[in-house]
Amino acid sequence: MTTYTHETVPTQFVEANGIRFAYRRFGKTGGVPIVMNIHFRGTMDHWDPAVTDGLAQQREVILFDNAGIGASSGVTPASIPGMATDAIAFIKALGISKADILGYSIGGKVAQEIAVQAPDLVRKLILVGTGPRGADTAASKGGEIFATSYDPPEHLWIAAHFLPNEDGHAAGLKYLERKHRRKDRSPEVSEASAAAQWKAIASSNVKTDGVWDYLADIHQPTLVVDGSNDLIIPTVNGFTLQQHLPNAQLIVYPDSSHGPHNQYPELFVAHATLFLNA
Amino acid sequence: MTTYTHETVPTQFVEANGIRFAYRRFGKTGGVPIVMNIHFRGTMDHWDPAVTDGLAQQREVILFDNAGIGASSGVTPASIPGMATDAIAFIKALGISKADILGYSIGGKVAQEIAVQAPDLVRKLILVGTGPRGADTAASKGGEIFATSYDPPEHLWIAAHFLPNEDGHAAGLKYLERKHRRKDRSPEVSEASAAAQWKAIASSNVKTDGVWDYLADIHQPTLVVDGSNDLIIPTVNGFTLQQHLPNAQLIVYPDSSHGPHNQYPELFVAHATLFLNA
Repeated sequence: MTTYTHETVPTQFVEANGIRFAYRRFGKTGGVPIVMNIHFRGTMDHWDPAVTDGLAQQREVILFDNAGIGASSGVTPASIPGMATDAIAFIKALGISKADILGYSIGGKVAQEIAVQAPDLVRKLILVGTGPRGADTAASKGGEIFATSYDPPEHLWIAAHFLPNEDGHAAGLKYLERKHRRKDRSPEVSEASAAAQWKAIASSNVKTDGVWDYLADIHQPTLVVDGSNDLIIPTVNGFTLQQHLPNAQLIVYPDSSHGPHNQYPELFVAHATLFLNA
Repeated sequence: MTTYTHETVPTQFVEANGIRFAYRRFGKTGGVPIVMNIHFRGTMDHWDPAVTDGLAQQREVILFDNAGIGASSGVTPASIPGMATDAIAFIKALGISKADILGYSIGGKVAQEIAVQAPDLVRKLILVGTGPRGADTAASKGGEIFATSYDPPEHLWIAAHFLPNEDGHAAGLKYLERKHRRKDRSPEVSEASAAAQWKAIASSNVKTDGVWDYLADIHQPTLVVDGSNDLIIPTVNGFTLQQHLPNAQLIVYPDSSHGPHNQYPELFVAHATLFLNA
């Protein structure tokens, strides 16, 4: 049997909910797989291979493009719960009855809603650079970071995931290099899908009385990981998640922004593996 | 050479600053040792052997009674910086020029002041269940927990370190059992020394403008570890430390209070070892 990596694993397709989902599956089989939910404007190719290959040493890793994203068909819903419904249909279509769910940024919001809608499907959650419904985004620089033009354009992701300092820039360049090694890539996210995602984020972040109450019903062991100064979804949201989830561990890394796992991939993989194996 | 453990290591003595310091030293030699600073009313025998023996697998562990505490002579200073001065004299008297410093609760405050007074002595810091100068203690239950009588008296430490729920109580009983296996013990902290410690804590927690500025000068890699609901030094103080120290990682454990490392000793040792070995 061939051992695939992030770079070599072929894209496969599965139908569910009338959507043709593109996905990739690799790593050590036989245990509970981990399903990865990516950030705003991200496809399967926006994961850091140092993270995915690291996790794949001890478990099966499943990357996918959700509805309307990348190589998948369908329409991107303008709500996080809608994205979660699609993700659940995808996971079940693979014949999986129990999965660990990792979500990054908007993907972390989707991961929470997967746990809300399909609690029996989820063994453990890892939430990276994200927040709860009704997140505190007062200090977010997300709007301006995504509205700026970059040369080359992919430097958007250095601005979005790393701090604007020397270490952040160096880590960002390395991350981009790792990310671009793979040649067979999903198409970038369309403007229409990005607009739907933006709408979904905005509506998820509306603050209402008791907006965090749903967290008390997410009983899965959860690992929350944040950068010290998340410029997109402020770090205080990770603390809020930890304080309101019944069984959550929080890890905050120093000198980092919205991409803590991309900045410290080996450490993140070690922490995530400790958590998932416990 | 005999391999000592927490339970079997003999107490030794060293003179410095006119104080006869009692200490115990065990574990794997040849690297940077870790010096452990204990909590309010604590002696060398208040460390959890599951933590100290776990750390000792990969490094030399040094437990000691600071001035006026347990089996050491001298007078307990009524200030945290005074305690740090004594601790530094003790460490240097052992001929150590570089150490990792772990501090728990008041010991975490001492650890910070050791880094302030002797930056070249300190390689890395681990701060457990503690806070900065000017800590936010509005929600602390410390006063009432320490003012209450317990039967048996050592159940004070279940109340002080664990949450008042089923898991917390069970973890607390196990911790006490581990802690009491050793028979050759330091005398308990005197009322006079406890009063000096209480004074030191109160004066350290006074809030003034810029009270957290000193944290910017502690450049050592620091691991901050907290329980989700620290009833003695509220968890928000760990977040404050992480946000104001230039190079700090924060880990918060679920369903735990002022003794996160006593509740999850294996996980704590794994996290601390990852941090110290990095």
